[in-house]
Amino acid sequence: MPEYTVRELAEFCEGRAEGDLDRRLSGAAAPEGATVTDLVFADSERTARAALQSSAGCVLLDESLPAPGRTVIRVRQPKLAFARLVVRLCPARRPAPGVHPQASVAADARLGRDVHVGPSAAVEAGAVIGDRTVVSSGCVVGEGTRIGPDCFLHGNVTLYPGVTLGARVILHSGVVIGADGFGYVFNGKSYEKFPQLGTVEIGDDVEIGANSSVDRAALGVTRIGSGTKIDNLVQVGHNVVMGEHCAIASLVGISGSCTIDHHVVMAGQVGLGDHVRIEAGAVLGGQCGVLPHKTVKRGATVWGTPARPIKDYLRQLAALARLGKKS
Amino acid sequence: MPEYTVRELAEFCEGRAEGDLDRRLSGAAAPEGATVTDLVFADSERTARAALQSSAGCVLLDESLPAPGRTVIRVRQPKLAFARLVVRLCPARRPAPGVHPQASVAADARLGRDVHVGPSAAVEAGAVIGDRTVVSSGCVVGEGTRIGPDCFLHGNVTLYPGVTLGARVILHSGVVIGADGFGYVFNGKSYEKFPQLGTVEIGDDVEIGANSSVDRAALGVTRIGSGTKIDNLVQVGHNVVMGEHCAIASLVGISGSCTIDHHVVMAGQVGLGDHVRIEAGAVLGGQCGVLPHKTVKRGATVWGTPARPIKDYLRQLAALARLGKKS
Amino acid sequence: MPEYTVRELAEFCEGRAEGDLDRRLSGAAAPEGATVTDLVFADSERTARAALQSSAGCVLLDESLPAPGRTVIRVRQPKLAFARLVVRLCPARRPAPGVHPQASVAADARLGRDVHVGPSAAVEAGAVIGDRTVVSSGCVVGEGTRIGPDCFLHGNVTLYPGVTLGARVILHSGVVIGADGFGYVFNGKSYEKFPQLGTVEIGDDVEIGANSSVDRAALGVTRIGSGTKIDNLVQVGHNVVMGEHCAIASLVGISGSCTIDHHVVMAGQVGLGDHVRIEAGAVLGGQCGVLPHKTVKRGATVWGTPARPIKDYLRQLAALARLGKKS
Repeated sequence: MPEYTVRELAEFCEGRAEGDLDRRLSGAAAPEGATVTDLVFADSERTARAALQSSAGCVLLDESLPAPGRTVIRVRQPKLAFARLVVRLCPARRPAPGVHPQASVAADARLGRDVHVGPSAAVEAGAVIGDRTVVSSGCVVGEGTRIGPDCFLHGNVTLYPGVTLGARVILHSGVVIGADGFGYVFNGKSYEKFPQLGTVEIGDDVEIGANSSVDRAALGVTRIGSGTKIDNLVQVGHNVVMGEHCAIASLVGISGSCTIDHHVVMAGQVGLGDHVRIEAGAVLGGQCGVLPHKTVKRGATVWGTPARPIKDYLRQLAALARLGKKS
Repeated sequence: MPEYTVRELAEFCEGRAEGDLDRRLSGAAAPEGATVTDLVFADSERTARAALQSSAGCVLLDESLPAPGRTVIRVRQPKLAFARLVVRLCPARRPAPGVHPQASVAADARLGRDVHVGPSAAVEAGAVIGDRTVVSSGCVVGEGTRIGPDCFLHGNVTLYPGVTLGARVILHSGVVIGADGFGYVFNGKSYEKFPQLGTVEIGDDVEIGANSSVDRAALGVTRIGSGTKIDNLVQVGHNVVMGEHCAIASLVGISGSCTIDHHVVMAGQVGLGDHVRIEAGAVLGGQCGVLPHKTVKRGATVWGTPARPIKDYLRQLAALARLGKKS
Repeated sequence: MPEYTVRELAEFCEGRAEGDLDRRLSGAAAPEGATVTDLVFADSERTARAALQSSAGCVLLDESLPAPGRTVIRVRQPKLAFARLVVRLCPARRPAPGVHPQASVAADARLGRDVHVGPSAAVEAGAVIGDRTVVSSGCVVGEGTRIGPDCFLHGNVTLYPGVTLGARVILHSGVVIGADGFGYVFNGKSYEKFPQLGTVEIGDDVEIGANSSVDRAALGVTRIGSGTKIDNLVQVGHNVVMGEHCAIASLVGISGSCTIDHHVVMAGQVGLGDHVRIEAGAVLGGQCGVLPHKTVKRGATVWGTPARPIKDYLRQLAALARLGKKS
């Protein structure tokens, strides 16, 4: 592990150090498990108490909280500074470059510099993998897939043929990109498969959690914008177009052909019917449901099913509670 | 890619062609991405406008919409005709027959003609795989499994020992068939595992989406009827019996011992308690929940939790909205 | 299959046999599929009727139900006795010990006695695997992972580096343990990854269903207590601490930093916001949602979103139904 002095760390995060500036740190921790070589952070009075009473070698915190006798770094956004410093203190281990002998890589696949392909991984014909990307054990990289540089596919990820990932994309285990969308035509008696000929394009710096799935478009492209973060067990249907810097929590279901602008936030278990439009900056409360073809307006916060402005919904819940008591 | 004239395509779908009958088509697309060699379709005035203004070589549409000067094929159900013609224009690529040297196939497994087994796939003892079935990379085909002809198991599918698939079954990546059901007996202090000795039988023409799971019966058989289509991230519990031609959207949870008749439709995130019965043709609205041991009547449309007839629920929602405004 | 007389089975379960005590049984079944060599059980008048009319060789039931002319074993808890006897009658087949030649096991991984590692499984550097544990085909056992004895990892399970499993843990296919939690810091424009440096510790006798995921702690440890059972497609967020002997049904979402005491029961599709506390013995009804930072009290039964005492919620539902009718 690398080691830095408090002085060096303060410079990295443009903070102001107090106390023992030459103290050497080599790790990061939560206050309860911290040792004298660890950095911790606090972003409230409550967490500051724990941090200042801990054995940590140094505490990141803002100017407002007193810290008599402690070695601290004063910084405007302690949590953000902590996240950035940890990248230096505890750099993520990446598997060594090279193709494992028990991997299967098609003769015409093109691997960039320092790519890692783990055992039992399969890279199919025509796939193109960017420099330093990691394809872990058990991954399937389908025919003609294009993966940017510095991506990390954890174990047992599946990419269907033809999908595209940008740079620095992280896919956790069990993620499936490019499976056929749920599209059928009912002929009066049975469902006939509607062609799922499109593809998926995922931007830069996207992270997708374990066992989530993004379906290929029927015709055209399912898109996930750069910087968007998706939690575990999320479903993104065919032809969805999602903007940049969205945050989508676990078990959310996004039906086919939804359009989601940038900086949208969805809490856990939210559901969108097909062809829903969510405008920029909207926030969807946990478990709420938006009916097909509806729009959630720019910056709105909605809750309940069918989703309505949160103020209205809270008044309705309060009215219902009163009604229940009366009866 | 194969090529067909407009005349040939019209014959295939029993439609009536107008315009340049000798024009050759070799693809299919959505209107916005179509080129002169592409077929498109329209099934409403709105989509007809886009289709007729597109660069597509030919438009499938019904008799009601004018299309002056365009090459079109008139047909009663344009979307259905499109789905069927695309099978000819853009036939799905199937991997070449053969067992990859990095696959593991038990000595006594029986593979039909032209079966494909991809790298890192494992076919265990006594498995029987039908003609032309594809077992992609990373799949696990458990001991004694029986798979019909023309099935397609995408990468990283897992079949537990003893399960049965019919013909033309499509399983997307991450699907798990035959895991133990969630069955325990509480002894007053801890949960003891109730035996999960049964199996799973899946009919013909079933398609199951990415990361969905169908549990084996405790005793007996969990069944999915022919023609039923299941979306991604769906849970089907032990001893469920599901009929033919159902459509089950993403993130639906079906508890143990539910009985679901044919032609049932469930929208996303619906939940059924154990021993629920859903009669034929019922439609369950998104996120609704049916309580254990309840029945949803033949052809009913229900919504809300607990699920109730949709008319009742909409009146209740309207009443609640009024109440919220008054207070 | 082993064979036991009715007399022997009665002794094993401390029951009282009536009828043909020398009859030999070699299997277990549900009444509808039972043959003369099968054991069945009944725990209600309704199931007793089916069991007594079946072809089963012996019926487990309590003292209250008459069974003239039948070979039965009287026992206080028939279902529990059945579960235990089935372990003898139908012992689970475990794959033969040994490392498959198409597995990949790091040179410094330590495997206990009689460990099974299937084809295409990968055991990474420094992993320690207990005696008799089964690592099925396609599993990825990350660097430095510690797995106790008698565990069973079904096909395509993924363990991230550094996680710990106790003894007799069962992980079904597609389970992902130790993926990064959903933690970011918003810098006003984009999300920066908050370090996910912690780990996961899973106790003894835990069973986790297909395609469920348990995220590693950001800092510290995500814990699942001994004896807890988790169904398919469940999300357990980072830094969750779950007690012993909980039962968590399918599609439940547990957000980061929730604390769940022992003997908690959650029905399907329940959702918890972050930092929720669920006290011992609480029961959460299907699809209910607990808001962030809220507590559900010891032994309480709650339902609805936001979750409230079930009595209150049922009164509110009844009041709403009346209101809907009036209007």
